[in-house]
Amino acid sequence: MRSAERPGSGHRWHRALLSPRSVALLGASDDPSKTTARPLRFLAAAGWPGAIYPVNPARDTVDGHRAWPSLRALPEVPDHALIMTRPDLAVEAVREAAALGVPVATVMASGFAEAGAAGRRLQEQLLDAVRSSELRLLGPSSLGVANLRERLILTANAAFTEPDPPVGDVFVASQSGSVIGALLSRGAEMGIGFAGLVSTGGEADLSLGEVCMATVDDPAVASYALFLESLPDVDELRRFAVAAAARDRPIVAYKVGRSRVVNELTLSHTGVLAGDDATASAILADLGIVRVDTFEALLEAQALVRRLPAGGPPAPDRPRDRPRIGVVTTTGGGAAMVADQLAVRGADVQPPSERTRRRLHASGIEVDGAPVIDLTLAGARYDVVKTALDVLLSSGDFDLLIAVAGSSARFQPELAVRPVVDSAGAGTALAAFVVPAAPDALRTLRQSGVPAFRTPESCADAVTAALRRRAPRSAPPRVQAGSEASQLHATRTLTEDGSYQLLDRLGVPHVPWVLVDVAAPPPELPFDGPVAVKARAASLPHKSDAGGVVLDVGDAERLRHAIDTVVANVSGHAPDVHLRHCLVQPMVAGVAEVLLGYRVDASGTPVVVLADGGVAAEVLGRRSLRVAPVDLRTAHEMIDEIAASDVLGGHRGRPAGDRAALAEAVVALSGAGELRGPAVVELEANPVVVLPAGHGVAAVDALAVLAAEDNGEAPS
Amino acid sequence: MRSAERPGSGHRWHRALLSPRSVALLGASDDPSKTTARPLRFLAAAGWPGAIYPVNPARDTVDGHRAWPSLRALPEVPDHALIMTRPDLAVEAVREAAALGVPVATVMASGFAEAGAAGRRLQEQLLDAVRSSELRLLGPSSLGVANLRERLILTANAAFTEPDPPVGDVFVASQSGSVIGALLSRGAEMGIGFAGLVSTGGEADLSLGEVCMATVDDPAVASYALFLESLPDVDELRRFAVAAAARDRPIVAYKVGRSRVVNELTLSHTGVLAGDDATASAILADLGIVRVDTFEALLEAQALVRRLPAGGPPAPDRPRDRPRIGVVTTTGGGAAMVADQLAVRGADVQPPSERTRRRLHASGIEVDGAPVIDLTLAGARYDVVKTALDVLLSSGDFDLLIAVAGSSARFQPELAVRPVVDSAGAGTALAAFVVPAAPDALRTLRQSGVPAFRTPESCADAVTAALRRRAPRSAPPRVQAGSEASQLHATRTLTEDGSYQLLDRLGVPHVPWVLVDVAAPPPELPFDGPVAVKARAASLPHKSDAGGVVLDVGDAERLRHAIDTVVANVSGHAPDVHLRHCLVQPMVAGVAEVLLGYRVDASGTPVVVLADGGVAAEVLGRRSLRVAPVDLRTAHEMIDEIAASDVLGGHRGRPAGDRAALAEAVVALSGAGELRGPAVVELEANPVVVLPAGHGVAAVDALAVLAAEDNGEAPS
Repeated sequence: MRSAERPGSGHRWHRALLSPRSVALLGASDDPSKTTARPLRFLAAAGWPGAIYPVNPARDTVDGHRAWPSLRALPEVPDHALIMTRPDLAVEAVREAAALGVPVATVMASGFAEAGAAGRRLQEQLLDAVRSSELRLLGPSSLGVANLRERLILTANAAFTEPDPPVGDVFVASQSGSVIGALLSRGAEMGIGFAGLVSTGGEADLSLGEVCMATVDDPAVASYALFLESLPDVDELRRFAVAAAARDRPIVAYKVGRSRVVNELTLSHTGVLAGDDATASAILADLGIVRVDTFEALLEAQALVRRLPAGGPPAPDRPRDRPRIGVVTTTGGGAAMVADQLAVRGADVQPPSERTRRRLHASGIEVDGAPVIDLTLAGARYDVVKTALDVLLSSGDFDLLIAVAGSSARFQPELAVRPVVDSAGAGTALAAFVVPAAPDALRTLRQSGVPAFRTPESCADAVTAALRRRAPRSAPPRVQAGSEASQLHATRTLTEDGSYQLLDRLGVPHVPWVLVDVAAPPPELPFDGPVAVKARAASLPHKSDAGGVVLDVGDAERLRHAIDTVVANVSGHAPDVHLRHCLVQPMVAGVAEVLLGYRVDASGTPVVVLADGGVAAEVLGRRSLRVAPVDLRTAHEMIDEIAASDVLGGHRGRPAGDRAALAEAVVALSGAGELRGPAVVELEANPVVVLPAGHGVAAVDALAVLAAEDNGEAPS
Repeated sequence: MRSAERPGSGHRWHRALLSPRSVALLGASDDPSKTTARPLRFLAAAGWPGAIYPVNPARDTVDGHRAWPSLRALPEVPDHALIMTRPDLAVEAVREAAALGVPVATVMASGFAEAGAAGRRLQEQLLDAVRSSELRLLGPSSLGVANLRERLILTANAAFTEPDPPVGDVFVASQSGSVIGALLSRGAEMGIGFAGLVSTGGEADLSLGEVCMATVDDPAVASYALFLESLPDVDELRRFAVAAAARDRPIVAYKVGRSRVVNELTLSHTGVLAGDDATASAILADLGIVRVDTFEALLEAQALVRRLPAGGPPAPDRPRDRPRIGVVTTTGGGAAMVADQLAVRGADVQPPSERTRRRLHASGIEVDGAPVIDLTLAGARYDVVKTALDVLLSSGDFDLLIAVAGSSARFQPELAVRPVVDSAGAGTALAAFVVPAAPDALRTLRQSGVPAFRTPESCADAVTAALRRRAPRSAPPRVQAGSEASQLHATRTLTEDGSYQLLDRLGVPHVPWVLVDVAAPPPELPFDGPVAVKARAASLPHKSDAGGVVLDVGDAERLRHAIDTVVANVSGHAPDVHLRHCLVQPMVAGVAEVLLGYRVDASGTPVVVLADGGVAAEVLGRRSLRVAPVDLRTAHEMIDEIAASDVLGGHRGRPAGDRAALAEAVVALSGAGELRGPAVVELEANPVVVLPAGHGVAAVDALAVLAAEDNGEAPS
């Protein structure tokens, strides 16, 4: 966000971050057992040609380099200052760097925002120093940066001891400092190289998206690997994702925290369902970022995503989540593992078409009709495998073909993977899973740009995730100013009828309702047939917990009795609530019940949630999440994901539900961010009863939470 | 099963299978491009000291060895004949081997039972030859065996070109021939060695369980790795599993086919829910076999299972599925990955107790109260890490401690993993996850017997699976003879009331019922309150599909009308069904509905299934499976697994369900195998309505399938 405030400053820090001509190392030590000794040694060992200025007021030299007493004392203003001192001294150094006009400072120390009140004060001071200058700050808690092509190893991560660090075209941005080292060493072992690696740390100033954006026009970068512990600034990440997509540079992310318990206080079930990590998944998908679940796939998927178009399989009439994956093998057991892992992830192996089998037959290659194409009988010779691959890759049967290589890949890597390398260039994308331990074969494949996988799990993980990639949504979804959960000062909860009025404005159907004055004379039954009677009070969002709901009320006498019961229960359960009205609605039964919710998450991103099971959805239901708003096709995908199609499609003699109306309701609710008036923070219809086909859907309860004040004009 | 028929024959084939003194190689070639050339070359290269007899009537010598025209022509009866000829010649060779008194023959060819009618005839001939002799047959489709300690490489798998195959104490039995090669090479790379490897192939005679049983007293074997494509003979597998457990030799299995679509024709939902692979999982768990989901964990878990007792965590009052796992680290990102993967698998990281933190403090080591114990601040020096590990391992806080090693493990493996090696011997089991690529560190750990993992996924997979291991059930569960689905000639379906009578005998509660003659005069309402009216016909198991159910019938007139409706609907839907009675029951509503089912699977193993969601359970519900019968503790575990505890425990103002009664019903139904009379093949109560606590549970529909004839006296 700050880059937008200061137009023109972008390019200067872009270069200084990863291609500085001079660096200052504050707090550099020459005690080799200390972390602070490493950057100087790494830079010297790598032969980095720039100017290196160790800054250490207590020393004349550090490791044979002349040491300087302060930044100010240097003979030039350095491009990039790596600050390795303790937090309070780091604040001083940042102030000095800002005053001198240093473009980038990286702060290694931790002990800021995460470290209590004192740390938060230090972080405020850090940001104050940055705010009034052109200095951009990486960190705090950043382990530094590396630009392998330029031999810039400006990091204290021990893994950069690597004598011959693998240069390549993957760019790594990681919220964890230790992981840049893990990826460097794993890449070295795998034969996957890097253009650069950045530890983004606390992202007090430069966010991960901005850091990546600084490299998006670098011709040395072909794709990105992100290691996330939480979701970085979503606006900056979107800006980067859109720019990267425009330049055909795909992004793969691995994110921890899938299991984190959501501790946020939310009134609605939607909040529980749209837990941190599920929202993060929806946001990453919306940004066209491939999220993998296995650590190795973060690197192994790089070559794969470069070979596949964004936006899913080419044919728009096929479901995006059901890609056509072919598997060809000379080894049964290995192929079975991959096929099994694919199926576990919801992707079945596609057998070759009859026409393709005829073409194989014409080339002298017989295969049976099994999904896995087994060439064992035809013989694993070069010409057989090459011919089979060429036929399969030009068949149009598949979105991706996986070649599974057996034991010969270990001792005859050339022989085993040569046909794969030779066929991989044209037509359908080709990937390889190598069943034995065969590092040379993997290396050969990777050097030829063929996506190659060491385990069946990472192979299936990367393949299914990559094939489901969409193009990023270029414009951030519209939400009302003031609805960002992280910036809310206060919220207010609407009554059920107030919430229905919001649904009315969006076009989400609900059952009719009337208010009955609890003090008035006994009313007549306001609808044909039995009714539900509910306590009506904004301060009582969970009515049923308070005994505030009576169902199946069949006549006027019982209605009176039900109202009295509700009043008595509520006054017993919540003495502060003064109940003036009950809400009365006709009972309605349908084919299925779902939860439909809208919510603006802490990052300011609106999401829509669909879950089966109605009221108990957060306990038992399947759910589907998307960044809101969604279109009709996406709404149908969501219905598929909660498997409600089985129920809605009619089952065991029950009538089919109104799927079309449900999809329309999803689309309608997902537009809650576009309503005028006070910002909608949460809006939940739960349950929504799905009626038989042609009869629509109807919410039978609703809960809205609005921003209490419009504080959109001055986001802090 | 055959070994039981021929007592005494066991030991002879045991030795001949893996420790022969002489081998015959039928169909051996000296064309190095042919698979059939490999075993002779492997044996010669390894320097196996036994007698090798190539048998090839077309040649005088093979690869410099004298060739013999036939088995009969050999100067001695060989211990083990490896038959590499095509199927019809293989049958001839097996006949000859049987006649000569050869103890073991391995058949490599495929083209038997799996290859149509002609193949099935060949398989019959193969078995005929074996049946009348003492010969035991490995295969067909077996790639052979290896005994690395004795340098016996009697296999055609190309991976055994390995110049220095890793000798160790893991024994591999694999249904896939190619996988023994993949495991050999991966073991070589990982530093994990093997006592032996066997490709069991089609298991026409020797089953995988028998093969393993042959090694169970071999002191060279410490644990087992099984690669399964389907479940082998369960009785033999149980015999082996029990024997292995008695000798403290744990078993780890990797099984493909989790995704296979179940095509069996089953009447009940239980059949769908108890799909092939879920049943296999329940059976493996019942046998105390640790099933891992990641391929690498099959080897990486070996050292781990040896360090952990079977039967779950020591304290019996803690749930078996919630082991206490500690994570200690000097690298934040890596520990976060493991913690995340553990939580995804339902196991949370356990923080150290207050007492343990005090002990650490007394040793000068400060840690915060976070679940992951981070030693970064205390310093990653040997003495700090060693002291911390010793305190943690002796604390009693954990069932297992995972040490996460960072980047220094790559270049200073000794330094990084030495404290782990030095502390691993005593107290709580210790495992290591190494975040960077650090093959030397992994090797050092493994050579010291410390379970070491290369990826966070395999680490969490192995740890959670191993900690959940139970002791195997020693006696096979009792089932009535004749209920093995694979041997059933015919079944018959009971009426709903007939099925209730079975439930009565087992003590599974159900709602009362009366039969009403559809031709008799209009009856009175037989129960207080509204009733359900259902068609009663054994030939109509899916009543509702035929319009054979009318619910909520409130008076005698409507009852008459409902009966007429049911009769009309059924005669329209199923004209062959002549409906004589309707079954009438009181309507009952409860807190939740579940499906409860019993089924004997194709292997003859009885399983019990619990699923939430009642009638639609096979579409949407969570399910839990166990080998039947189960005890009360297991029944409660099953209830936990379907997460019904949330619903049963009372939720959002709804009353709590009768969990105790549900658990008792699970136990009762699981005993269906012990009923006398015709064998129960399937018995399903669906839905079972769970009433509020203290009010029990009640099945409101039931479906039983019995074996039509008692064919138990002569299983074929």
